[in-house]
Amino acid sequence: MSSTIINKTHISVAQNASGRHLNVPIYEISSGMDGPHVYIQSSIHGSEVQGNVVIYHLIQALKNILVRGKITLVPNCNPVGTNIKAGEYTLGRFDPVNGTNWNRGYYYDEQSVIEFANNVSETDDISDIRNAFKAHTLNKIIEKKQQPWGLGLAQQLNLTLQSISSQADIVLDLHNGPVSSRHIYIPEYLAHQANQFSMPHTILIPNQFAGALDEASFCPWWTLSDHLGARFGRDYDFNIEAYTLEMGSQEIIDFKDGEKDACSILAYLQHKDAIATNTYQPQKMKRLCVYLKDYKTLFTDFGGMVEYSAQPGQLIKKGETLAKVLNIDDLDNQQGVKVIKAPCDLIPILHFPSASVLSGTQLYKCFTQYFEIN
Amino acid sequence: MSSTIINKTHISVAQNASGRHLNVPIYEISSGMDGPHVYIQSSIHGSEVQGNVVIYHLIQALKNILVRGKITLVPNCNPVGTNIKAGEYTLGRFDPVNGTNWNRGYYYDEQSVIEFANNVSETDDISDIRNAFKAHTLNKIIEKKQQPWGLGLAQQLNLTLQSISSQADIVLDLHNGPVSSRHIYIPEYLAHQANQFSMPHTILIPNQFAGALDEASFCPWWTLSDHLGARFGRDYDFNIEAYTLEMGSQEIIDFKDGEKDACSILAYLQHKDAIATNTYQPQKMKRLCVYLKDYKTLFTDFGGMVEYSAQPGQLIKKGETLAKVLNIDDLDNQQGVKVIKAPCDLIPILHFPSASVLSGTQLYKCFTQYFEIN
Amino acid sequence: MSSTIINKTHISVAQNASGRHLNVPIYEISSGMDGPHVYIQSSIHGSEVQGNVVIYHLIQALKNILVRGKITLVPNCNPVGTNIKAGEYTLGRFDPVNGTNWNRGYYYDEQSVIEFANNVSETDDISDIRNAFKAHTLNKIIEKKQQPWGLGLAQQLNLTLQSISSQADIVLDLHNGPVSSRHIYIPEYLAHQANQFSMPHTILIPNQFAGALDEASFCPWWTLSDHLGARFGRDYDFNIEAYTLEMGSQEIIDFKDGEKDACSILAYLQHKDAIATNTYQPQKMKRLCVYLKDYKTLFTDFGGMVEYSAQPGQLIKKGETLAKVLNIDDLDNQQGVKVIKAPCDLIPILHFPSASVLSGTQLYKCFTQYFEIN
Amino acid sequence: MSSTIINKTHISVAQNASGRHLNVPIYEISSGMDGPHVYIQSSIHGSEVQGNVVIYHLIQALKNILVRGKITLVPNCNPVGTNIKAGEYTLGRFDPVNGTNWNRGYYYDEQSVIEFANNVSETDDISDIRNAFKAHTLNKIIEKKQQPWGLGLAQQLNLTLQSISSQADIVLDLHNGPVSSRHIYIPEYLAHQANQFSMPHTILIPNQFAGALDEASFCPWWTLSDHLGARFGRDYDFNIEAYTLEMGSQEIIDFKDGEKDACSILAYLQHKDAIATNTYQPQKMKRLCVYLKDYKTLFTDFGGMVEYSAQPGQLIKKGETLAKVLNIDDLDNQQGVKVIKAPCDLIPILHFPSASVLSGTQLYKCFTQYFEIN
Repeated sequence: MSSTIINKTHISVAQNASGRHLNVPIYEISSGMDGPHVYIQSSIHGSEVQGNVVIYHLIQALKNILVRGKITLVPNCNPVGTNIKAGEYTLGRFDPVNGTNWNRGYYYDEQSVIEFANNVSETDDISDIRNAFKAHTLNKIIEKKQQPWGLGLAQQLNLTLQSISSQADIVLDLHNGPVSSRHIYIPEYLAHQANQFSMPHTILIPNQFAGALDEASFCPWWTLSDHLGARFGRDYDFNIEAYTLEMGSQEIIDFKDGEKDACSILAYLQHKDAIATNTYQPQKMKRLCVYLKDYKTLFTDFGGMVEYSAQPGQLIKKGETLAKVLNIDDLDNQQGVKVIKAPCDLIPILHFPSASVLSGTQLYKCFTQYFEIN
Repeated sequence: MSSTIINKTHISVAQNASGRHLNVPIYEISSGMDGPHVYIQSSIHGSEVQGNVVIYHLIQALKNILVRGKITLVPNCNPVGTNIKAGEYTLGRFDPVNGTNWNRGYYYDEQSVIEFANNVSETDDISDIRNAFKAHTLNKIIEKKQQPWGLGLAQQLNLTLQSISSQADIVLDLHNGPVSSRHIYIPEYLAHQANQFSMPHTILIPNQFAGALDEASFCPWWTLSDHLGARFGRDYDFNIEAYTLEMGSQEIIDFKDGEKDACSILAYLQHKDAIATNTYQPQKMKRLCVYLKDYKTLFTDFGGMVEYSAQPGQLIKKGETLAKVLNIDDLDNQQGVKVIKAPCDLIPILHFPSASVLSGTQLYKCFTQYFEIN
Repeated sequence: MSSTIINKTHISVAQNASGRHLNVPIYEISSGMDGPHVYIQSSIHGSEVQGNVVIYHLIQALKNILVRGKITLVPNCNPVGTNIKAGEYTLGRFDPVNGTNWNRGYYYDEQSVIEFANNVSETDDISDIRNAFKAHTLNKIIEKKQQPWGLGLAQQLNLTLQSISSQADIVLDLHNGPVSSRHIYIPEYLAHQANQFSMPHTILIPNQFAGALDEASFCPWWTLSDHLGARFGRDYDFNIEAYTLEMGSQEIIDFKDGEKDACSILAYLQHKDAIATNTYQPQKMKRLCVYLKDYKTLFTDFGGMVEYSAQPGQLIKKGETLAKVLNIDDLDNQQGVKVIKAPCDLIPILHFPSASVLSGTQLYKCFTQYFEIN
Repeated sequence: MSSTIINKTHISVAQNASGRHLNVPIYEISSGMDGPHVYIQSSIHGSEVQGNVVIYHLIQALKNILVRGKITLVPNCNPVGTNIKAGEYTLGRFDPVNGTNWNRGYYYDEQSVIEFANNVSETDDISDIRNAFKAHTLNKIIEKKQQPWGLGLAQQLNLTLQSISSQADIVLDLHNGPVSSRHIYIPEYLAHQANQFSMPHTILIPNQFAGALDEASFCPWWTLSDHLGARFGRDYDFNIEAYTLEMGSQEIIDFKDGEKDACSILAYLQHKDAIATNTYQPQKMKRLCVYLKDYKTLFTDFGGMVEYSAQPGQLIKKGETLAKVLNIDDLDNQQGVKVIKAPCDLIPILHFPSASVLSGTQLYKCFTQYFEIN
């Protein structure tokens, strides 16, 4: 009878100015059975730490669960971002040297997918295509990393992680918003999976690559499916899935919430036959959904000190108050408090985490034109 | 019949690299009556913004109140600190160039107080002494600002503010903690005033100067009282008071809470006959108190990702859990979560605002050996 | 007889957390004559300050020169970037809140140019087309700024500047490199103008928009020329020019060098008949040139402490030493110093300004495949 | 016959948010002979890196030299400070979380020295007193590190280093200035040693502790000497020396200069009989000297963009230009450039490394009232 084995290794994703390797732990869990390969990472943005607790709880649970296939867990996958302090907080969203977002340097080359697709023959078995395409992608990533002039830090780090994630069938990238409700990014072709997660808010994203891991994980397969489908006039479902999960607010570790988040992921993994259980179920809840184009960012036109009057997840009608901005030069007159109102019916999903804002600050990200999904 | 007049001016406290003056608004409120001069400032630490809302509500209330004496309100008194962003948050606690705490450069020179005291004669009227000492202090501050080699930015800024505050009889400095309960610093000789504020937690501080505005405001008078008292064998009460009020957590603007905070201050001002009202009363509440030496900082010996399990204001018994620290390299074994326990019975008053900490981070500040005051 | 008039105004490009407008000075110089409109700005990257001295010297010189047309000078065009300190240096390259490069949010929409081109008729006068296209572009910029959901700070600031620069015939954007030789970016169609500047190194850039001001200034006209040319089978030369000049190293003000730089610009302006002089001449010098694709960035694969052995402007042969990296854990053995060698013949143009580097740091930018231009 | 052995170990001085130990390499060099114990560290301030090259060259030289006693070399002694980037530069001077200077948390307790001194008897051998006092100091340091409420990061790091350095007879702390000439801090009682170093500028410091390593190293012994001398009426020379060497400018690695700096130190070590050589000699040079009280900091009263017209090491007469400040709002009038003049005859030793300054910035540190020493 099989039992679950946890294998822990480390890989270096960067080297610091002291010449030290910055290592990332890789926990590989398997029980010697067949099944999908799952890859889960957390904290590519350094201040988004809750995913690490989720992975902790996943490991505790998986110790007592039979795993089909393999589950690779990569907590704290960006030790550079985790350890840059600027004041009390963590400057974890971008490289402090040059401003590069840590989640924008993954590899995707549409042209290379098309070339691969053109070499597939109609009689090729889908699982052979899948394996060949994984190998093809890995080669491209390795090639890119070996450029003679080198690569920037964020891209080096991203590609090192992607050399593992690109071999998986299921990729989950665990993030947090600034002050945020729980929400999930799902590629449009997987909209039906929204109810497998216990997430109240879903953003459906198109087949467009902007550098993030989820896109880098599903765009190649989506493009491959489309091309093969068009060439041979039938459906190609490679059964590859990738999601970005936003586990609430950044800069917070909460063990109880982390346990719930882990259960939500286990329910999805059970649904995907990645684990041999039948005890996990997605929560019964109302699930609201938008297309990415309707997920709007509200910027402020002026600077000041902001009360975020609307809470993440709360329905706000057009014209209702989203925020109040204090102007310290006008405390004795009518201009002392400006009110920012909702330009349409909306649900704020997250807001800026600081009360002090310059003009042009992203105050809220909001669902507009949302609909229920189930 | 007298009515209340609000006079607004600006003073420059610094100049930036574009050569622009950084101005601070000064709201002076009076009704042409006699009474104490009150000075209230907020946001000397840039991310501690709630005091600005409190001043906003004070101004709204004072419009309809007769003010005895004069109330000077200085919101956002440090525009340098307010406007230094490092990531999404405000790097407002110290000068980003050199690390100097913005609240440590006020003037106090014990020797100069003693010299002044030695020139007082036994027959001098207490109000004449008070006026003469205010003038003496102002001269010293101006002299210090005019040093031929110049002064550092924080000190320049502090002295400019102090040239106003030093002329007041009552000084309130409005701050916030990181993630914090409401609490107040009171000099020991004013312990009996704790129940005039609606603050559940009081720290009693001795006659020792460490650079902050409250100390710079009361230490000279305390020292002067002591010296004159010792010389002439009787009590000298100059009726000068100074407090630091911590209005909850930094990086938050909350209008409703700000209104409550303003009422708390108005009750104190009414008690001091600074305003001609009888409608404000301090809240009935349990007030806990410590001596500064018993207000302990708990540092962590190791780094990791922290859940702050104990909330500000909550009684924690010796040995109970204060925090849990996740170690991402040990998620598969017993070292995955370390528990930090209370070294004695205590009440955490504030905690660090980020989940990611290096060793040597100030996790909590705690009341120990506290007692009830009423 | 005409004389030169300097008109100074200010525009607000942003508002800070204190609610204060951040103003940029605009110096407009004209002598009531006809001629091209020149726009020169400096310091869009906050630590690149030498251009401000150049504008200072330009103003001193222009006081005694007749200006044909108009010269608009905008020093310190980004007061946000200028005033963000992080330690002793200026964090001026990107928005500290979100990492957005301050020089990537200008407006260019190829589709809109093509639509405009399609409405031009063959008989339209070239100067009418130019005026109409300037008006068209300004409308688009204003429209973009008025989006109901707002815009990010960098983009707001860029568009405010561009609403002025887009009306000019000649745009010069004054920058600095980190530790850098003087060099200039020239659009390929203006390669013949390289010898009008006293710049030893020229980078020729294609008609591709990546967000910078020079691109935003010439791409629309280049595209318009191409489309009209293709439609009507003849050349359209709108006589619009835009350049980015890199005036040596950042964080340095040097008045003498600034005077030389100003003379270099005046020689170009004289060549363009923007000023009524004949006294300025470009320096006689060897001018080396590359296509943008051959302007290579060398990243380091490892972290450590770097000696930049090769100086900006110095010819380095393949295999010669560019840099030495000290590894503090191996000072007692052969790994103590690693040597980074030139991968081909090259000329380093600039290098990173700090000795301490992580892996993936951009050590040098280098000319390869360069050629002489004259 | 003895030969030189290099022993390399690592100690952890901190732990980061990933839970990783931040290690510092310790190179111990000895040849099995008797002699003084020398301790040399570098880079307590993260951007002051040249000392690491000096230690590299010291190790290369010491491989071929017989060492009397022991030489402990601790390069990059503050891996936290080394690895905090804020923009391209290193934010290495203070803890980015709270502003604490990394060189202010060493241990010295005058009272504890006096208590120790009171327990010494007149007949005690000086070498026994020295050993006992080293043991006493070490115990105090260990005790301090084990406080139940913990310690701040900078202090933890300082005390860990001091637990080694406090056992040495000679302590050299290698620093850099911002843009700086080479200079050295020497305790007044060791003024005669200034000509053993190849340093053109010397600052003589009194027996006052402000937290730095050199003070923490010599103050206890100076105080002990004084007390024993006063008690027993004779001289106690413990032959303990400590210096801070400023090896030029920060953010620069220069191997050739580092070799010269290493030779300067070897000459001093030879003079102290710490190495068995006779080949190293201090350079013949003019050595200028000031008392600490005459080492003046010049702050600017206004903000702007600064040309540092006076170079480190250059004699400037009273009234001559030190700096010019460009004001971008006045480029068209007389206020465009303000000149900052020397308030007296002086030699600037270092200046601020950025052209952009707020009011209250430390522009220069200067020798005044200097004299030649030889």
